[in-house]
Parts: sequence; structure tokens; C-alpha cells
Amino acid sequence: MEFRIARIDLREWKAREEKIPESLLRKYLGGRGLGAYLALKEIPPKIDPLSPENKIYILTGPLTGTGAFQSGRYHVVGKSPLTGILGDSNSGGQFGPWLRFSGYDGLVIEGASDEPVWISIVDGEIEFHPAKRLWGKGVIHTERVIRAEMKTPSEYVGSVLAIGPAGENLSKIAAIMNDRYRAAGRTGLAAVLGAKKLKAIFVKGSRKVEIADMKKFLEESKKLTKKIMEHPISEALGKYGTAVLVNIINSHGAFPTKNWTRGTFEKAFEISGEYLAEKYLVTNKGCWGCAIRCARVSKVDTGPYRTPVSEGPEYETIWAFGANTLIGNLEALIKINYLANDLGFDTISLGNTMSTLMELYEKAKKGELPEEKAKELMELLGDIEPTWGNAEAFIQAVWRTAYRHGIGDIMAEGAARLAEYFGSPDSAIHVKGLELPAYDPRGINSMALAYATANRGGCHLRSYAVSFDVLGAPKKYDPLAIDMEKVELVKYQQDYFSVIDSLVVCKFNTFATDHTDYVGVLQAVTGWEDLTADELLEIGERIYNVERLFAVREGHGYKDYLPKRLLETPLPDGPAAGKTAKEALEAYLPKYYELRGWEDGKPKPETLKRLGLDEFLYIVS
Amino acid sequence: MEFRIARIDLREWKAREEKIPESLLRKYLGGRGLGAYLALKEIPPKIDPLSPENKIYILTGPLTGTGAFQSGRYHVVGKSPLTGILGDSNSGGQFGPWLRFSGYDGLVIEGASDEPVWISIVDGEIEFHPAKRLWGKGVIHTERVIRAEMKTPSEYVGSVLAIGPAGENLSKIAAIMNDRYRAAGRTGLAAVLGAKKLKAIFVKGSRKVEIADMKKFLEESKKLTKKIMEHPISEALGKYGTAVLVNIINSHGAFPTKNWTRGTFEKAFEISGEYLAEKYLVTNKGCWGCAIRCARVSKVDTGPYRTPVSEGPEYETIWAFGANTLIGNLEALIKINYLANDLGFDTISLGNTMSTLMELYEKAKKGELPEEKAKELMELLGDIEPTWGNAEAFIQAVWRTAYRHGIGDIMAEGAARLAEYFGSPDSAIHVKGLELPAYDPRGINSMALAYATANRGGCHLRSYAVSFDVLGAPKKYDPLAIDMEKVELVKYQQDYFSVIDSLVVCKFNTFATDHTDYVGVLQAVTGWEDLTADELLEIGERIYNVERLFAVREGHGYKDYLPKRLLETPLPDGPAAGKTAKEALEAYLPKYYELRGWEDGKPKPETLKRLGLDEFLYIVS
Repeated sequence: MEFRIARIDLREWKAREEKIPESLLRKYLGGRGLGAYLALKEIPPKIDPLSPENKIYILTGPLTGTGAFQSGRYHVVGKSPLTGILGDSNSGGQFGPWLRFSGYDGLVIEGASDEPVWISIVDGEIEFHPAKRLWGKGVIHTERVIRAEMKTPSEYVGSVLAIGPAGENLSKIAAIMNDRYRAAGRTGLAAVLGAKKLKAIFVKGSRKVEIADMKKFLEESKKLTKKIMEHPISEALGKYGTAVLVNIINSHGAFPTKNWTRGTFEKAFEISGEYLAEKYLVTNKGCWGCAIRCARVSKVDTGPYRTPVSEGPEYETIWAFGANTLIGNLEALIKINYLANDLGFDTISLGNTMSTLMELYEKAKKGELPEEKAKELMELLGDIEPTWGNAEAFIQAVWRTAYRHGIGDIMAEGAARLAEYFGSPDSAIHVKGLELPAYDPRGINSMALAYATANRGGCHLRSYAVSFDVLGAPKKYDPLAIDMEKVELVKYQQDYFSVIDSLVVCKFNTFATDHTDYVGVLQAVTGWEDLTADELLEIGERIYNVERLFAVREGHGYKDYLPKRLLETPLPDGPAAGKTAKEALEAYLPKYYELRGWEDGKPKPETLKRLGLDEFLYIVS
Repeated sequence: MEFRIARIDLREWKAREEKIPESLLRKYLGGRGLGAYLALKEIPPKIDPLSPENKIYILTGPLTGTGAFQSGRYHVVGKSPLTGILGDSNSGGQFGPWLRFSGYDGLVIEGASDEPVWISIVDGEIEFHPAKRLWGKGVIHTERVIRAEMKTPSEYVGSVLAIGPAGENLSKIAAIMNDRYRAAGRTGLAAVLGAKKLKAIFVKGSRKVEIADMKKFLEESKKLTKKIMEHPISEALGKYGTAVLVNIINSHGAFPTKNWTRGTFEKAFEISGEYLAEKYLVTNKGCWGCAIRCARVSKVDTGPYRTPVSEGPEYETIWAFGANTLIGNLEALIKINYLANDLGFDTISLGNTMSTLMELYEKAKKGELPEEKAKELMELLGDIEPTWGNAEAFIQAVWRTAYRHGIGDIMAEGAARLAEYFGSPDSAIHVKGLELPAYDPRGINSMALAYATANRGGCHLRSYAVSFDVLGAPKKYDPLAIDMEKVELVKYQQDYFSVIDSLVVCKFNTFATDHTDYVGVLQAVTGWEDLTADELLEIGERIYNVERLFAVREGHGYKDYLPKRLLETPLPDGPAAGKTAKEALEAYLPKYYELRGWEDGKPKPETLKRLGLDEFLYIVS
């Protein structure tokens, strides 16, 4: 199997091609795994993530663009300015396949340009273009200008990855956007591109992705497609999009509301996927190579929240912008989502930052912030009044955050730093600097372990324990019961999801699949006929350990914990009333470390040896 | 009389002191006159206004900071990026006097800095400070940070001049702000500071302003103060601020409405000075050395337009943001004014640009724009829908214009270029590129001549013919009647106002005064005991000719005209229904040229000789 990367030197505006040895691919596959390995090898320890020494890896995997079901994604890796440890994020749309078609399986972005630049890659030809006139511009405008320049108007031919003003202005909650509305959002890697002054990448080409055994591939691929498409969760995702979760999670009392002080939102239905489908949906949309079509295309025709036809909002966005800020107006959420996409934000982080601001504002009004800090907060707010549920204040705050105006200068640093700055660190609900997503672990207790041990900080996509605690896949557990089987499932998901992110395919298939389902198709594509299911899962475990090693080497981010509020303050409402996440975390974590072969969050030397990671023993010894 | 300027070389971060010869002061006084002369001598012809070759003159005059009534202002001069001819603007507040107290009577800003910089001038000491952390920030925040750094918290001690994001981003309608809410707004000179990367200037000091004959000064000054304070217009300005004009001008049918398509606004009362005083006024405020206190301090306590205690809005702003866009909600206008100040815009230009956008949008919807242009307009608008009266769209547009996002990138160029870009040039109501202020010359016909012949483009502050056509000062005329006496008054005001702007004092005294009133106080301050009233008025005429010579040398901007709509489309409503400005302009202009000694907008050689401008004969020969 061949894997070609282009190393792009932004300082010199030069690129060179490099082949990744097949032996390395067999250990890390591609995507997230390969990125983690390369980052640990190549990014020097303890550098400033916004310095030219940081690198951004934009990687596909062996399945990307093959036509295997849901193979339309790509993965980004680099040192995160938000968390200070390894950051990574995954995105769908069209970019991943078109990157491969352009001639490269991955890009390594190095150094920093003196002036704004964008890159085109067409059939192996890499060109650098001055981007001064695109600097400061939104993602939508940027894509339009670049597509005009490249004479490629159809959104299904070629693809544009871009950062918005948020990334340019080094917001630590900025998202790398592609195809206008798709985001590699988490961990703020767009700020790294901003610091490197890389505005956008256009990819197009007609390279055929290599498949070792086409006959076998078609057979295996067909099986896989059938299995995924026939699963009821796939059907629900197609019908109502990810926002189908609003009513489900709310009914479990695990829908974080008012900045994580409640577990249910009385207006949940009005911001649900069902309501969206009824009122604002234009059509469904799918990523490249996917027939589920869980993406929403929506619009608001008129009124203060008028929004043109555009994609989203997703479940996480609806929650973060809505329930957690008490904004129960879906029209407002659609508009804020549009602005957040165009300005280039991670919506989970931005929503949490806004709800944190609302809490800080309330505390300031009640005299619960240090006096000097309360005064400064009021000054920086200027004309905005971030009361709970105030959509106008949120819209204003989005602009300020993108351009670092007034309070936006501190909001651009994310929820943790915002809360810290104003002397109320516990007002930010995050793990390791990454703001938490839309599941309260007090109501879904496996998420306590999932959040605490997620390598990139508080995240639902390392283990999506919601799958078994709520949705019953592969099997239903009681989300409030302590059950040690769930620890095994969390670890399993973390390892399996590492494989998924490295293949690269969509995680939404994991309701229907396990790792054994991918052996055949991967054999067919790579020609690795002796690949076993155990080997595949071990690759996942290896990746998970490599990511953890990055944190150990940095000297922080390997201690697994949950925010104080989730451990100490019981939920006041809903089915999980009275619960905290403390009991679960304390029960699960020791067992988890045992399963992992870790001690206090650090891999033991024998674990590294078992996984063939001897070269990194120096980090733990 | 001594006049010390600091030449500030931004490229080298160096300054040197220079004395202006007294003979030159006797010809141009200071402020606007001295600036016009220096600009014509020093700024090379036909340069790009945003190039380092342009210069910005920030000048006081002999009366600034003396304690003479209304001597709290300063004047800025430079080549305008908006009009391409000489630009200048005047501002009150505290900056002018504190500049003099700091040790300098004027500053000449030259070259361009490589990185953002701000300057402090304290008791003659000029220091350069990196301004990277202030770049992108609002005017209010900038002042707060600089005052903290300079340990000068009181707003009445020292003063900060700053540009906002609009100026940084080279918006041609950006204003130079001082004391947070005061603007040297017209002709976009903030963009020149933005291009030079000069974010702000702090001034403070204890230099005493020289007064040659203090006894005489006190006597003359007292007479002048009494005369101004006792005038009924002064009283009205104190009571209701400049917005006292809303009802007056509206009742004359000369209140431009819906982008200059009507002369009356049905919601005029709801946006009037009287209504402001009743509902939103916190207190009145005056510039340094003025007891009229026509400035408003206002706030909106709650709701979507909540605005903290801040200054304004003035009459022009209320009109441009309100009647001309059909926004009849004063709360919205207060908020937009706050944002415009903080982001650093000329509110007259910004309001006209917004109303032009609304007209273009309406035309696009009706199919009255070229098809491609209509499509591009819709794309650039994104989620905003600039329907008439849509305050939310305006708020969104202000942010976009400041940071050149989407449609804002073109709005930042001003109304004329916006309308031109979308193929409908007559949708922008401007003269020589400068958007017109709040008086429709179809209803106040002397303004036809005043606008057409104003040296900086369409402006009410070269001749304020409203004074005699509407307010009866010095004597009431019929605003709709052709009367050749009014030509003499327009020319007189242009010359007298040139003196006022060069002394530098406030134009609001000219309802009560004429040029003879300033002879005594100027003699006392300067020691020019032989100064006569005729000489003073001749200085004004000289200045007016020097400004015009700048346009002649540039090869454009000396042809005097009015926008097509005002000449050809009769007002449909109000007392001036059926009127255009054509008849008046055609009647007045020949007589005006005769009085001026000009031909086709160019000074004749004999006129230059008469005014002692022989050195500039080369321009007209």
C-alpha cells in the first residue's frame, strides 16, 4: 500500500513529496493514528502551539475515497493551542476524498508564511497563492472566491478547506472548516493554521485510489453497507439528523442546561431534530460516499434570525448554543450556527464559552466575582448584556470573539481561560481545557469515565458511552448504575474509535459495527491478507497510547479528572436528580487503568513494549 | 506668537520639533488653514492616499485651549482616501487643548510604521509604544488600556485620540476618534492612520498656552461668551442637543428619508432630540471650554438595543442611521451609534452607505440591477437582509463593514463605490465622493450651492446655509425662493468658517457671531495688534482657495455639481414637494464663481495674486 504525503513548507512556499513506509501504516493505518505518531516524533516537546515549530497533519486513511461506506472524511492532528496537548479533529463533507484524488494521501503543514497564503493542489501540482484579499473574510466568501479562481463552481467537484476570521485571529476555539459548513472543530487547530497564515487549501484531481483486490473490496464493502444501513439508529440519523438526540438525551435528564446547572431543558422539543425537520429543513445531505445523509440543510426565511440556505445545525451545536445558554428559539440557533461556521468556530467550545460568560455575568451582578474583575467584565462587555437566553447578546458576542473585540478577546481563548480570567474557574465545564459536549455524566455515568480519560480533553468521540448507556448499542445498560462491564466498553470504544478515525470512516457506523467488520474491507484495500481482527484492535490501542504519551511528554494533560461541578453538585432535576459523577468516576477509573496497563494516567513500560512502542519508552522512564 | 509642531516619522519611530514661522500663521492662523497650506506644499500630487507618502496634520489654532469660549477643538487634514482630494475634519472633546498642554500646537504624521504603534506625548516627551495588543480593538477599550498604562484614569485629564477597527482595516468611511465618542469623522482620514499603523495618540502636560495680552483677552473673551450664550440657538442646543433639528428640518420637508427619496419621515418625533431628552438622556456634556453642553450622554437600559452610558447620538447620526434607512426606533439608533463610535466610523458616511445598500437590495429584488451584480449582492449579504427599517441588518452590517467581512468589504469603501460596484451609481447621494449630510437641498435651496462648492465634497460645514434658510441667523430667508443674496451668504460663511476652523473654535457660535467678533480676542492672544476684520476674512478666503487648489492640482474634484437625484427627481412629499435643486444650483453657481473670482471651479490667476498666493500660480496656469 502506498501513502504519499506532501510536506508543505510555508516559510519558503515550497512542497516536497514523501512516502510513508508501509510498515508504519500497518502500525497506525493513517488519519488520526498516523498523525499522532508523526506528531509525537516530529513536534518538539513544550513548544508554543502557535509557533512555526508546530505542525498540522491533514490526513486521509486507507479507506478514504475508496467508496467504502462513509469513507468521505479526513483527520487533522497537531499540538492544540486550547489544551496544550495533542489536538486532533475529524471532518466529513468532500475534502478527504478530493485530497486523495488530488494526488496526496496527506499533507504536513510546516513553518509559517510571512504573509497570508492559500494553496491549490490539482493533480499533484501544488501552488501557493497570496491570500491577502481573503484575510479577514468568512469561510463562505473564501470558498466562493477560490472556486471562481479555480474555475470549479460545483460543490461536488474539488473541495476547499479554510479557516475563518476566528482562526486568523488565533482564537483557541477556532475550527478548520471544509466545504463551507463542515468542521474539524475540536481543539482549536484552526488557530495554528492562522498563526501559519494559511487561509485555505483547494484540492482537485483525478488520481484513482489504489485498491489491492477490487473483487473482494466490492463484496466486503457491500456487506458493510448493508449492516450499517439496516441499523435503526442509521435510519433515525437519516430522518432527523443528529438533533434526533435532543429529545432522547433530555428525557434521560442528561441534557446539560444553563451551563451545566440542570439536566433538562423545558424547551427541548422546540430545538429538536423533529422540530427542525418540520419547520426549517430544506433537504438532507450526505458526505461523500454515504447514503445515510444525516446532515441538515436548513433556512429561516424572514425575521431577525433570517438565514439563507445553509447546513446544520447539528445536535451538539443546538445543545451548546441552545439549552446550555437557555436560548430556546431554533431560528436564533440556526442563525448563530451560520455565523459560527462562516467565522470559523468550534460550536461546542463557542457555546460553552458563551454559557460560561452568562454565568460569569450573573455572578458579577450578584456580587459573586472579585470586585475588580466584575468591573472589568462590565467594561469589556460594552453594550452587550449576556443574560440567560439572550440570543442578541450571543450574536454580538460571536462577532466580537471572531475579531477579538472587547470581551471577545478573552472569549476567543475558550471557556476555561475566560472563567479563570474572571476569577471563577469552576464556571467553565471542561476537561484538560476542552469544553465538554452535550451529555451530562451525572445522568449517563459511563460518560464520566469517557470524558475523564479522553486523550484530547473532554470529548464524546473517544468513547461514545451514550451508545450503550442510552441507545442500547451494542446492548442497553442502566445509565445511572455502576457496572464494571461498562469500563471494558469504554476502553473498547476508545481503541475501536481510534481505528475508525485512522481508516478514516465515520463514527456513526459504530452503532452497527465492531472492529471485526473492518478486517475484510481493509485487507482488500491494502493487500494485507494476514491482517486479523485482534491486530486491528491492537492498532487502536497503540494509537491511544501514543496520544497519551504526547501528554506525558508535555508534563500535563495525562491526569484524568472531571470538573468540580460534575463531581460535587448533584443534578437538581429530571431522572438523574440527586446524582453526581463522583461515584462512577471513582469506581471506574482504577479498573480502567488496570485494563489499559497504565498507572496514574501514564502507560507502564511493559504496556508500551507489548504494543511495540519501545521507541517511546524514554518518555515514561 | 509661537507655534510648535512635532514631525513624527513613523517609519523610524522618531520625532523632531519644528517652529512654524509667524508670517505663515498670520496668513493661515492654524488648524484647517495651516493644514491646507502644509498639505498643498508637502503632499506630492496624485499619490495614493493610503501610501506612506500621505501625511496627516493634527493641528490646534491660536485660540485652542486658551479658555476662549468653545476653544476645545482641533482639526485634522490630509489627502482623503474617500474623495482623492484634500480631506479634513474637526473634532471637539478634550484632545485639542491637551495636545497644546502636552507641548505641541500640532503634529505632522509622516511615513508608515511596520507594526502597530501608539504614541504618548507628555510634557514635550514623545514616546512610541508597540500597539499589537490594541490592534483590532474598539476605541473604548483602546482608551481604557492606554489610560491605565499612562496612569491617567480621569477622562478630564489628558486625552486619547484613536482609530477603531474600521480605520485599521482601511475603511474609507472611518473616523478618527478622540475621547471615545468624539469624531473627526469626515473624509475617512482614519484609514490613512490605519495605513500608517498608528493606533492612538495620548497627550497630557502642563504647558501654559501663551496669551500676549491677558487683560485684553479676558475682556474680549467675556464679550464673546456673553454674545454666544445669550443666543436662542445656543440655548436650544444646550437643551436638546443637535438633535433639536430633527423636528425642525422635518417640518421643512428637507429631512432626507429612505435614501433621499422623500423629504419627511413619519417617525421624526420618535427620533428627535426632544424624545431623546425625555427617554434616554443621562446628562448633557460639553467640550473643553464650553458651557453650552450640547453633547448628549444617553443609555438604553434593557432589551435588544441595550446600550451602556455613552455619548450621542447627534442630529446627523440620528438622521443618517434613522430617517434615511427608515429605522424609527431611537433605541436602535443609540446602539448603532455606540457601535459606530467604538468601531470608528463617520456616522454620516456609514448611514448613507447603509441606506444605499438598502436601495440596492430593493433594486436587486425588483430586477433593477444587472443580473450578475444582483446575484453577487445576494451572495455577499449572506444572512443579512437589508430591508428598509431593518435595524438588525444594520447592526450586523456595521460589524461586517468594520472588519471587511462579506458585503462589508464593499461597504467599507463608502456609498459611492458601493453603488458603483453594483451598477447603480445614482443610488449613492454624494458630491465628489463624500456622502451628503442631513439637509435636502430640494427643500433648503441654498444648500444646493453649499454642497456643490464645498471643498471637501458634499458637506454642511463649509457653509451652513440652513442657518439663514431655516434658522433665521443672521436673518431669515425663504428656503424655497431663489434669492441672489444667499449666494453672498454662502461665500461669506465658507470664508468665515475657514477662519473658525483655523482658530480653532466651534462652528456652533456662528449663529451668534460674525468674523468681526473674533478680531479682539485674536489680537489679544497673538499680539497682532494691527489685525483687522477684513484681514481676518481674507485669511478665510485664502484658505478656501488653497483647498480648492489642491483639487485643481489633483486634476479632479474642482467641478462643482450635485447628484442626479437631487437635480432631476422632485421631492414627492412635504412643504417642498415638487421641488428639485436644479433651478437653484443653476441660478447660484455663476454668481458664486463671479464672487469668488473663479472660472469653472478653478481660481483665476488674479484671484490668487490678490490673496497673496503667487507661489501656487503654477497650479492654475
